[in-house]
Amino acid sequence: MDYNVESIKLHNKLKGKIEIVSKKKISSKKDLSLLYTPGVGAVSLEIYKDFKKAKQLTSSKNTVAIITDGSAVLGLGDIGPLASLPVMEGKAALFKEFADVDAFPITIDSKDTEEIIKTVKLISKSYGGINLEDIAAPRCFEIENRLKKELDIPVFHDDQHGTAIVVLSALINALKVTKKDKNSRIVINGAGAAGLSITKLLHAAGFMNILVCDSKGIISNERKDLNSYKKEILDITNKENISGNLLEAIKNADIFIGASKGNLLTSKDILTMNQDSIIFALANPTPEIFPTDAKKGKAKIIATGRSDFENQINNVLVFPGLFKALLKYNVIDISQELKIDVSKAIAGVIKKPTEKKIIPSVLDKKVIKEIDKAVSKYKI
Amino acid sequence: MDYNVESIKLHNKLKGKIEIVSKKKISSKKDLSLLYTPGVGAVSLEIYKDFKKAKQLTSSKNTVAIITDGSAVLGLGDIGPLASLPVMEGKAALFKEFADVDAFPITIDSKDTEEIIKTVKLISKSYGGINLEDIAAPRCFEIENRLKKELDIPVFHDDQHGTAIVVLSALINALKVTKKDKNSRIVINGAGAAGLSITKLLHAAGFMNILVCDSKGIISNERKDLNSYKKEILDITNKENISGNLLEAIKNADIFIGASKGNLLTSKDILTMNQDSIIFALANPTPEIFPTDAKKGKAKIIATGRSDFENQINNVLVFPGLFKALLKYNVIDISQELKIDVSKAIAGVIKKPTEKKIIPSVLDKKVIKEIDKAVSKYKI
Repeated sequence: MDYNVESIKLHNKLKGKIEIVSKKKISSKKDLSLLYTPGVGAVSLEIYKDFKKAKQLTSSKNTVAIITDGSAVLGLGDIGPLASLPVMEGKAALFKEFADVDAFPITIDSKDTEEIIKTVKLISKSYGGINLEDIAAPRCFEIENRLKKELDIPVFHDDQHGTAIVVLSALINALKVTKKDKNSRIVINGAGAAGLSITKLLHAAGFMNILVCDSKGIISNERKDLNSYKKEILDITNKENISGNLLEAIKNADIFIGASKGNLLTSKDILTMNQDSIIFALANPTPEIFPTDAKKGKAKIIATGRSDFENQINNVLVFPGLFKALLKYNVIDISQELKIDVSKAIAGVIKKPTEKKIIPSVLDKKVIKEIDKAVSKYKI
Repeated sequence: MDYNVESIKLHNKLKGKIEIVSKKKISSKKDLSLLYTPGVGAVSLEIYKDFKKAKQLTSSKNTVAIITDGSAVLGLGDIGPLASLPVMEGKAALFKEFADVDAFPITIDSKDTEEIIKTVKLISKSYGGINLEDIAAPRCFEIENRLKKELDIPVFHDDQHGTAIVVLSALINALKVTKKDKNSRIVINGAGAAGLSITKLLHAAGFMNILVCDSKGIISNERKDLNSYKKEILDITNKENISGNLLEAIKNADIFIGASKGNLLTSKDILTMNQDSIIFALANPTPEIFPTDAKKGKAKIIATGRSDFENQINNVLVFPGLFKALLKYNVIDISQELKIDVSKAIAGVIKKPTEKKIIPSVLDKKVIKEIDKAVSKYKI
């Protein structure tokens, strides 16, 4: 099946994937008087007297704003707000279908960090949470950090942390299968939103032997071209201060995690890694190396972002259930501890991990329940 | 029935009146691949290559953003963005129930004209139209004028123009019943968003004998306290340059239109008007004069904004059908001519107007069809 052709066909037919519906039919003057004027005035007044009541009397308790500037969409890059809309609508559809969360796609026509922050702040009052999406690095870091500080609702950049959580989940089970441990040498290729967040979360989870590469090679103290976000991770990676390119990095490494671009590695490259190597080739739609080639390179476990191979590492496992639980338990601070607990919860859905099954299916309904349990401990 | 108590109960039960749903169930990996990744990438790329395709491939063609700063909500005034949310959700519910339009409530936490304009512009890319709502005068005029100029989608401040359109509809039929004509003396009380827009639309429709009052009395050349929006209507009202208070204004007038506040007039006051007077007492929930008192004052026709009296003048007759048609026919400019045509279309639904029936019921499904026909002539 050609997903591109079929997807365009389906979108042409649907004319948009989401719709906003009334929970109650309006078929009498009484309905109108209760849902709208004059009755609704009393409801507004209740909230005006006690803002906390908005969570009970409006949809806000169950809503997430999906915010993007369309600058880093899938593998497409900066296609702008309007062209990013099908992705945001898709995400909103998943939020509802998987977790019954009402998600509003909101595209912002600006690449200016301050303008984006200001816009989100001004419209944030009526949402329960903010899901930042497909915003380019390094702008996305500043936007998230500031909004986390300045808003009193959960703020979550999915490309960073959704990816990090699901990668850690898969890694927990991959270690079990390969009998490797947290001292294994990990090479993370890609120092953008996903790569840096994965690095920080793995370190917080106890992984101590990490090298991060960007397109110029290993991130080390010798590099003079690093932005502040890349410099920051020197504290938690590359203790031996190794320099070199990606191929030098993966030599004798145990684990490769790619959040970069397609077709970077060959079977021969994988052969230079330690025995029973673990390959997460997450570039989409073309992975850093295809599973068949990684297998030829004697990789033990291979995962990608794609649904047509085994071990699909996809944020869909995280964001619907995570936001559902955050909203339910009034959790605002999405700490590293919480993320690690969510990773463990997702990993725990697979009772006996195998090479071919280190991560639950994106359709596995148990995932949402386990995330709920993990987040419930952070209830305020 | 106590609408306030019942409405709060219902809202507590519903926990918000609207939800965002997926048009297609997502129950397989194939669904996921077509609605989201990897398929959706091709859809985004189609739009990136030709932005016009967004109307076909996303929900944007059928969406309206309901924008408010919560500064002039119903009779409650400035209750702020969060407390206004039940009203905006109610409006979104009506948009969907009456006209199958997907409306997104968006509250803006600012009272600054430029900030509001900027915010709407930055998020407007993914909507088919903008419905401004419950924004205080005179800020609302500047915001609407600027957005109309600076955006290429329809922008409509419902408190102004929705009200004006439905008032003109009712007036067309009231004239038929009373055999009055366009030279009748009209007194419009209230020079805020609704009052000024009613004034302009009635003048554009050929009514030449209008006096407008604000809380200080008749708007005339003698007044030194008028803002620019009130000054502007001197060109089209009060040709004789009369001064005085509201009671002096209505003496020997034929028509009173109140867009002001409750309990301003008595039966005795109405007795000073011409025979077969027409009273539109639109203040909500308490009208400028109650129907029974107006009848004692020998008014021939009385209309209010309330659903519990005859002749309910309510914007619900306008905004769902109007936006549905604007989006359908790609109409951007909501001109006075278009508004007058819509008014006539709504009035025309009542084939034989009577004292008790000058305007269709808010539940009359013919209204949407007639508005569609009226707007279709403006198709681009």
